[in-house]
Amino acid sequence: MIPWEDHRDRLLAAAHPLPPLAVTLAAARGLVLAEDVVTRWPVPLFDNSAMDGYAVRREDAGVGARLTVVADVPAGSAEDPRLGPGEAARIMTGAATPTDADVVVPLEDTVAGPAGPGGVPAWIELTRAPAPGAHVRRRGEDLAAGAVSLHAGTALGPWQLAAAASAGYDVLCVHRRPRVAVISTGSELIDPSGTPGRGQIPESNSVLLAAALDEAGMELVSVDRVRDDEPERLAALVDAAEADAVILTGGASVGAYDVVKETLAPRGVRFDKVGIQPGKPQGFGVRTDGAPIFALPGNPVAVAACFEVFVRPALLRLAGRAEVFRREEHRRATVPWRCPPGRAQVLPVMLDGLDGVAPATAGGSASHLVASLAVAEALAIVPAATERIEEGDEVLVMVLS
Amino acid sequence: MIPWEDHRDRLLAAAHPLPPLAVTLAAARGLVLAEDVVTRWPVPLFDNSAMDGYAVRREDAGVGARLTVVADVPAGSAEDPRLGPGEAARIMTGAATPTDADVVVPLEDTVAGPAGPGGVPAWIELTRAPAPGAHVRRRGEDLAAGAVSLHAGTALGPWQLAAAASAGYDVLCVHRRPRVAVISTGSELIDPSGTPGRGQIPESNSVLLAAALDEAGMELVSVDRVRDDEPERLAALVDAAEADAVILTGGASVGAYDVVKETLAPRGVRFDKVGIQPGKPQGFGVRTDGAPIFALPGNPVAVAACFEVFVRPALLRLAGRAEVFRREEHRRATVPWRCPPGRAQVLPVMLDGLDGVAPATAGGSASHLVASLAVAEALAIVPAATERIEEGDEVLVMVLS
Repeated sequence: MIPWEDHRDRLLAAAHPLPPLAVTLAAARGLVLAEDVVTRWPVPLFDNSAMDGYAVRREDAGVGARLTVVADVPAGSAEDPRLGPGEAARIMTGAATPTDADVVVPLEDTVAGPAGPGGVPAWIELTRAPAPGAHVRRRGEDLAAGAVSLHAGTALGPWQLAAAASAGYDVLCVHRRPRVAVISTGSELIDPSGTPGRGQIPESNSVLLAAALDEAGMELVSVDRVRDDEPERLAALVDAAEADAVILTGGASVGAYDVVKETLAPRGVRFDKVGIQPGKPQGFGVRTDGAPIFALPGNPVAVAACFEVFVRPALLRLAGRAEVFRREEHRRATVPWRCPPGRAQVLPVMLDGLDGVAPATAGGSASHLVASLAVAEALAIVPAATERIEEGDEVLVMVLS
Repeated sequence: MIPWEDHRDRLLAAAHPLPPLAVTLAAARGLVLAEDVVTRWPVPLFDNSAMDGYAVRREDAGVGARLTVVADVPAGSAEDPRLGPGEAARIMTGAATPTDADVVVPLEDTVAGPAGPGGVPAWIELTRAPAPGAHVRRRGEDLAAGAVSLHAGTALGPWQLAAAASAGYDVLCVHRRPRVAVISTGSELIDPSGTPGRGQIPESNSVLLAAALDEAGMELVSVDRVRDDEPERLAALVDAAEADAVILTGGASVGAYDVVKETLAPRGVRFDKVGIQPGKPQGFGVRTDGAPIFALPGNPVAVAACFEVFVRPALLRLAGRAEVFRREEHRRATVPWRCPPGRAQVLPVMLDGLDGVAPATAGGSASHLVASLAVAEALAIVPAATERIEEGDEVLVMVLS
């Protein structure tokens, strides 16, 4: 039996980022930067107003001062009106502050005279004096031109894409999206809508993996189901998959009909007992083209757990991510539970309030408890040496959503 | 100024789940159940083996007992071989245990005689005695037939879809996916790839919203950009959008060219000062067909914050979700920061280790600090009454990834 951390490290070591390509911002969503994004312009690009109000010289801006409004600067205006002593320019949020002004007085700190053309008052009186530099955002105060806005290896979520747009980019250099093939094996599997006879069960693993791959930003290229008596077909599917990675479920154990093991062990896939529950029997290898092959157990909970703990980090490495692990946090067990002797435990759990955690179903981590997946929000990772979690114990939790 | 919680409640009260429809499992990803999913069959459907090994009668299964192997039950087999005293059936994980057997002895607890046809040994000897019921999963022990596996209002992620498949479904009744139109306003906006002149900035808000909507499971139906001097065009876009919700950015404040406010206030959209920073000027209303209209400020950080705090929960309500809020947790500030007087603060933050939190950029929450979005992982929510966060203070954090 090998420690699960060693198994994971072996998978990660075999996964190399896919080649880069240039894509639009819209197409970059969920992909990973292959190059740093360097700001083309200072951010902000020009001194601008943080408020709707009046740009003035601070030396003129005492309480009760009456200033003549000589200009109007709406957002988007390219103008830079001159301001003499005792003069002000009306200005809108985000508009460039006139070079002659050094503060902005918010609308609510003024009383305006009668409106002239375009609603611009002839004069204003200040009801409050501005502090030095008030409400002026300085050119480059957010980022200097040439500064790195986003680093290579960053996954492009909504905020990162907005930052890239602000840095002046609508095309980004990203790693190609990994294409993944899924093959579920087992003569007992039928379509979920079918009526299972004795010995048969609805096939759910490919459903789980398809959705989990989508969530991880992968492209699902094929889903196949193979019976335990179809080794040639299985071999052909693995060899021919136009994919950067292949995930198989079932047939990885020590049984007499373990088609995955029988077919792939001669192809260099190594089958191990991994020190984790669920997920003890697993295989891993690399196709001649370098594509990793993940052979997972057949139980749905084992597939869910092994995907998160082993497969997803390796796939995110293919995708080019610098950070491939889910966020982890400590929580307190709200109920006790048993842990398997000698193996780490990966247990679907529910989060309880701000810092509680409990198994998603009573009955522990038996890998057939697919019902626990319906309500689980996270995975607890319990070290191999722990035999029992008591109420109040601190537990490491891998948060999924 | 209205408390931000009241503003959020008003938005939520106006958002009603969209009508249900039936879709395949693959199409249901990210959508929300409109009906409970009731298991069609007990889970498991039949007593089955949790191990590769031999199904035997426990009364025969003492250490050293030699049992005759009279049958072979691979996974998927419909057979139920009879076992007499002293007899065993080879069985694979997941296969139906013979009615005559009450325990399974794992392969590794046996010594096998010479292999006969199909590799099945003529006899086995037990090296370890099984406990009562060992390694047999009982029919219905996970879920009884007719039990609710997934509740209406549940979002369908990978695990939930797998649970639905296991419950016997390949079609689910879900709420229709909300269609959302995005309109960014502001004469200062140019394409990110353009060269901004004085007064101009790259438009990033629609980039942010498009990606955030995708992540929230929404369908983006249109993105438009409107200048501040195009009120008629803006009105036409809002009226004609084939959408269940409309999100606008910019022009919601008290300025002279606030096209959104000028255009939509007469249409019943109410503009408020909301007690939050960023995000003070906001509008909200409902189109004649019931579609909510969200008018957000124009600053990118304000858009990011207001989407998370106000818009996303309301959209998830449209989508039918029972739970519309992000998960929150308490963390400790690793540095001090200032908070705006009299308003709650929504601050892009970085998570530090298992329980630390710090602003994503130095400089606090000024809403133009778009660079902070590049590295932020979460939003801190600081109550209005708090004027300053000291190092070590407990902070409520809304976790995004």
